[in-house]
This record gives sequence, C-alpha cells and structure tokens, in this order.
Amino acid sequence: MAGIFYGIGVGPGDPDLLTVKAVKTINKVDAVIAPKSGEAGSTALAIARPHLKKDVELVNLVFPMAGKQEDWREAWRENKKVIGGLLQEGKDVAFLTLGDPMFFSTYIYVFRLLQEEGHTIETVSGVPAFCAAAGRAGFPLVEGDEVLSIVPATADQAMIENAMRSFNNLVLMKVSRDTDSLLAMLARHGFSRNAVLVSRCGLPGEDIVHGLPEGGGKVNYLSTILARRDR
Amino acid sequence: MAGIFYGIGVGPGDPDLLTVKAVKTINKVDAVIAPKSGEAGSTALAIARPHLKKDVELVNLVFPMAGKQEDWREAWRENKKVIGGLLQEGKDVAFLTLGDPMFFSTYIYVFRLLQEEGHTIETVSGVPAFCAAAGRAGFPLVEGDEVLSIVPATADQAMIENAMRSFNNLVLMKVSRDTDSLLAMLARHGFSRNAVLVSRCGLPGEDIVHGLPEGGGKVNYLSTILARRDR
Repeated sequence: MAGIFYGIGVGPGDPDLLTVKAVKTINKVDAVIAPKSGEAGSTALAIARPHLKKDVELVNLVFPMAGKQEDWREAWRENKKVIGGLLQEGKDVAFLTLGDPMFFSTYIYVFRLLQEEGHTIETVSGVPAFCAAAGRAGFPLVEGDEVLSIVPATADQAMIENAMRSFNNLVLMKVSRDTDSLLAMLARHGFSRNAVLVSRCGLPGEDIVHGLPEGGGKVNYLSTILARRDR
Repeated sequence: MAGIFYGIGVGPGDPDLLTVKAVKTINKVDAVIAPKSGEAGSTALAIARPHLKKDVELVNLVFPMAGKQEDWREAWRENKKVIGGLLQEGKDVAFLTLGDPMFFSTYIYVFRLLQEEGHTIETVSGVPAFCAAAGRAGFPLVEGDEVLSIVPATADQAMIENAMRSFNNLVLMKVSRDTDSLLAMLARHGFSRNAVLVSRCGLPGEDIVHGLPEGGGKVNYLSTILARRDR
C-alpha cells in the first residue's frame, strides 16, 4: 500500500510553536523531507529538529526559488519523483514547511503535483509568522468588523497601494526587498505611528522595532511589518 | 510578586492543534480563564480541556457580545477586576481564546485593559481557523505575489465588495449572517468555482462544501468561506 504524504507546518521559529499534531506526525512517519531553497540549510528543519526521532530517514531536497523558471520546474519535477518513489515504497512521508502549509509556501506546489497523481495527502496546519509576530510584539492585528490585508512586498506596487488605501489593517510580508520605498509608501498612507517591524520571530537574532524604522538599513529576509492606520 | 497573564490561542477546534507551548503553559499556571459569550459553554475550554491539569483553578467569565454596548463595557470591566485580583494574589493566569489571540478575538480587549494597568503579559500564538480550514479542505490560500484579504461578513457591504473587486484571494469569516446575499456577491465577483465553505473545522459536526453552496440553508456560526477568483 502506498504511503501517506503529510504537509507539516512547523510554525514561525520557536520549536515549541509546533502543534501537538505536528510533533505526533513527524514522530510516526518513515521519512522527513527538509526543503531548502539554495546553499543555506533548511530553516524548517532547524525548527523541527528537537522533535525528530533519531532514526528517521531525512531527505534534503533543493527547491530553487531564484533564476530561470524552467530550471526550477525541472528541479521540482525531480523532487516530486523522489517523494513519489518513497510513497510507492509504502513509506509515510512528512514534508516540513515554515509557518502554515497553505499560506505562501513551497508546500502548495508540491501538494498540487502530488494531488494530481492521486496520492493520499494530509495537511497539518501551523501558526503563520504574522500571528507570532503580533504575539511577540503585543500588536493586535484585527478585531470586530475590520478587514485585514496580507500583502507580500513583492506584489505589484499599484496593488500594494490599493490595499493601503482601502483597508486600515495590514500585514506586509517579504519586506526585505525595496524596504525604503515600502516605508515611504506606508508613511504616505498614514501607517507611521501604529506599526511594528518583526525580524526572525522566535529565532536567534529576533528583532522587534515599534513605529516605522528609519530607512537606509538592511532588513533581514525573515521580516514582517504589521500596521494599523493612524486615527 | 504579581502573576503573569498568558493569552493562549487554542487553535480552531482539534485539541491536537494546540501548540506545544500552549500545552506547557496551561500546565504550569495557577488559574485558567474560560471566556464565554452567553449561556452556551466555552468552546475554547472544550478544546483545551484534554490538556488541563486536574487541580487547576478554573474561572468562567462571561464576555457579552450582544445587546447594549454599555452593559458589555460594565461586564468587561468587572472581568478585568477578577483577573487583576488573581494576578495581584501572585497567581499566573492563562486566558483561553479560539484560534490566534491577536486575530479577531475577545482576548484583544482584555489584553489592552490589562496592559494599561502595567501587568506582565505573554501571548502564546495559535493556529487561526482559516488556516485549519484550508488544510482540511485541501485549499491553498495564497502564494507567490498574491494578496490575501481577510474579511468578516459583518463588515460594511461596500468594504466587502471593494475587497472582492480588488483582490483574487479571500477569506470570509462570520458568514452565518446574511449568507445568501454574501453568496450572491461572491458569484457576482467571479468567485463561484474556486470556493469552499468549512463549518466547525476540527470539531464534532465538521462540514466541508466545495464550490459555492446553494443559498437558502442555515449556516453554522463557526463557518468560514475560502475563495480564489475564477480564471
């Protein structure tokens, strides 16, 4: 019988923010997939490592996120074959992913590829980074009848400005690119006072800056801005 | 020495979706606050109960959500006094809340009231219901450069339509009120094919309906719609 494929959200950084279900699941599977995007180690694996059983089969797979899209596709198809092979051997396989699996993750692509081939899949939800950032910073995200927009800073600029114009509560992700122009945009739309920048939430080197930071600095890759419009 | 106030996200329903940190924390505190909004029992307590130690002091507090706002305020101030009293006695207190504490929760108001009085507060993040709904339904929420709007169906109609017009990925919360007009609005804005309604996610009576459901039915209070615009 073919194995089950589990997508495991390991949460934002603190190993204690895995769910009980995630811990139980990675302790019962036969193989654990640790995805990484390049040379650096897998952050998801570092977070989950305290919970892994010693004799688990650990499979490192590289999912390129930069460079030519054709090269990615080829690498991803190869990865799918590796995972499909393990499942065909009857092994249950857990795929580790940062935050929540269905929310801005590499897992989504793997999920679709394996779903097309009819594999049995179970997704184990996790705490998204923006919730943990709000908790660590003591920054309520959204309440009552308010709308929350979650915007990657890599989106089209018109779309980002549209969100800033339309809604009073924002989560900005992937803010390490073009940070200065993003900060200027936030200030222009009245988000300067009630904002917080959280970097490496729950990881070594965590940094929390209340109010919009001064521009010009380098912002860590794992950074999120939470903001509410000034009243 | 005054105690510490912990806000504990218990996640959406499945007791195994509490984080390891939430379980550890409710096992070390002296008192646990189970909030409820009226006559019915506390859903957050039902979810956390398997993890509670037997001799913990359990405090039921009613936080009214309906009726006159002045009456609420009075009740909430009274609740704050009860919690403040426990903290002054040197007790560590955990306040249970559905999903994530900083995301559409009663906890936010309690957090603000206690923060004003200078209490030491720690928030333990949880899995929000919309992530768990996506996981259970096998419905990827948002990826790449897309924007996700999270909209309570109790928001102003113009604001709901603005979100539907502007962005391709939606989470609609509190959809049990005016469900038919909401479904019509979704269909009008091209969200009819890629949508799923998830009720009582991870709780007894869980229901998952793919595609927009037919109107006219009664929808459970704990229901969420996830939708992506048709292409």
